Amino acid sequence: MADWYDEVYQDQERYGLRFTQRLYDQQSPYQRVEVIDTTSMGRVLVIDGVFMTSERDEHFYHELTVHPAMVTAPRARRVLIVGGGDGGTTRRVLQHPSVEQVVMVEIDALVVEASKAHLPGLGSWDDPRLELRIGDGIAYVREAEVDPFDVVILDGTDPVGPGEGLFGRDFYRGVRRMLADDGVFALQSESPFLDRQLFLDIQRALADVFPRVHPYFGPAPLYSAGVWSWTLAGAEVDPAAVDDARAAAVEPSCRYWNRDINRGIFALPSDLRRELAR
Amino acid sequence: MADWYDEVYQDQERYGLRFTQRLYDQQSPYQRVEVIDTTSMGRVLVIDGVFMTSERDEHFYHELTVHPAMVTAPRARRVLIVGGGDGGTTRRVLQHPSVEQVVMVEIDALVVEASKAHLPGLGSWDDPRLELRIGDGIAYVREAEVDPFDVVILDGTDPVGPGEGLFGRDFYRGVRRMLADDGVFALQSESPFLDRQLFLDIQRALADVFPRVHPYFGPAPLYSAGVWSWTLAGAEVDPAAVDDARAAAVEPSCRYWNRDINRGIFALPSDLRRELAR
Repeated sequence: MADWYDEVYQDQERYGLRFTQRLYDQQSPYQRVEVIDTTSMGRVLVIDGVFMTSERDEHFYHELTVHPAMVTAPRARRVLIVGGGDGGTTRRVLQHPSVEQVVMVEIDALVVEASKAHLPGLGSWDDPRLELRIGDGIAYVREAEVDPFDVVILDGTDPVGPGEGLFGRDFYRGVRRMLADDGVFALQSESPFLDRQLFLDIQRALADVFPRVHPYFGPAPLYSAGVWSWTLAGAEVDPAAVDDARAAAVEPSCRYWNRDINRGIFALPSDLRRELAR
Repeated sequence: MADWYDEVYQDQERYGLRFTQRLYDQQSPYQRVEVIDTTSMGRVLVIDGVFMTSERDEHFYHELTVHPAMVTAPRARRVLIVGGGDGGTTRRVLQHPSVEQVVMVEIDALVVEASKAHLPGLGSWDDPRLELRIGDGIAYVREAEVDPFDVVILDGTDPVGPGEGLFGRDFYRGVRRMLADDGVFALQSESPFLDRQLFLDIQRALADVFPRVHPYFGPAPLYSAGVWSWTLAGAEVDPAAVDDARAAAVEPSCRYWNRDINRGIFALPSDLRRELAR
């Protein structure tokens, strides 16, 4: 019988998967990186004991991380990804024919190594439009002298360990510095059900830096509570202003996202609407 | 240290909650009924080892089970609920001022007993508009000679044990017999991610009995995979035809549902759209 691998949340809840083997297990300078093979979710990337992505459910998270920003930005030619070491976000960005260059800044080379070796279906590592940089995304957005990006995507872990600095006004100001004036920033913004305060803190910090902030919601079966949030932020971003040609170009590759889904995900749950109106 | 109570799904996944005490534990003629007190979800109703509802997350499930049907039906005066023994569905129905009579047919008196005693916040058991019948909902929809209902809601367990007969054409034909010609039937239709075949089977069975079938989707943190489906079915039901006055009357009581949410939940994920088009 296969063993259980349990993700334990604050010693109050646990979510366990039967796993048949551990394919990768290394300690990087930043975190423990594992890939396990499970009976229900396929191969799963695990960082510091937290399930990050799986072969079976990764399309929910990655399609929702990428496509809403890519179809609402006025242009989608130059894209910066901070984090995203498993490759799933990069692959969805590169599915857009409009994309000319993607810079991906991932701090942990072992996440890339593990994903290339054991989750090869997730990434598009050989695409010539991709420039992969192993380094600190926080320093990059603060210091890099490059042309502005049309879209910046933060695909990071929870705000602990190396991900901590990716949540907060300083990082968001760096992102705004990298963005074209009318560019769009997209980020995962945690579970509004399990940790509402963190979700609200992110919204308020974004609102201090960006004139427009639009949270959205969707399924993430592998994550605690199953429902997750993301946010679009920018000087002018309007979730209803979808570029139909760009959307139509990627819809055939999508298992979850489409324009109908995109119209629905920005609806605010009643309790969050009340709290954000305060 | 509190113990774990794990719901195990097909011996492949488990979802565990720390619980501090077991408040109720009885074997009925149909199933084992428990109420446990957990550290993260409050009190939880458990049937045959499966988490049914909790104090902390019940609003997602019950608001989504009730309000979409109640605001799209041409009238919402007479309502039949099959199952729903914890009382949460009944309470949401009774929040609609238009409601004159609710008949609730629950097969298992112990579910009602456990819920009244240990989850008293869920139900509205003393409302004079409620007629509670302990009995077989399948027989009721087949045989009862009563005036037609404006809305019928099936709030049942998974299709095992006593819930098995609640999934399938015979039961759906009974529901149609009970409905006004333009009435609306709402039911939970399982997880489209964890058991897609069951979801598709339900859709196809409904389509054999009802001219219009509209699945919808939403969060259910307590349930496996966290994303759940429901379906509206009827001769004429149109999810976009929302009665604004009825919706406005219940929105202040809602923690999740509202009209914006209602506009979004009927969007079909891309893979389900392809499968249902076959």
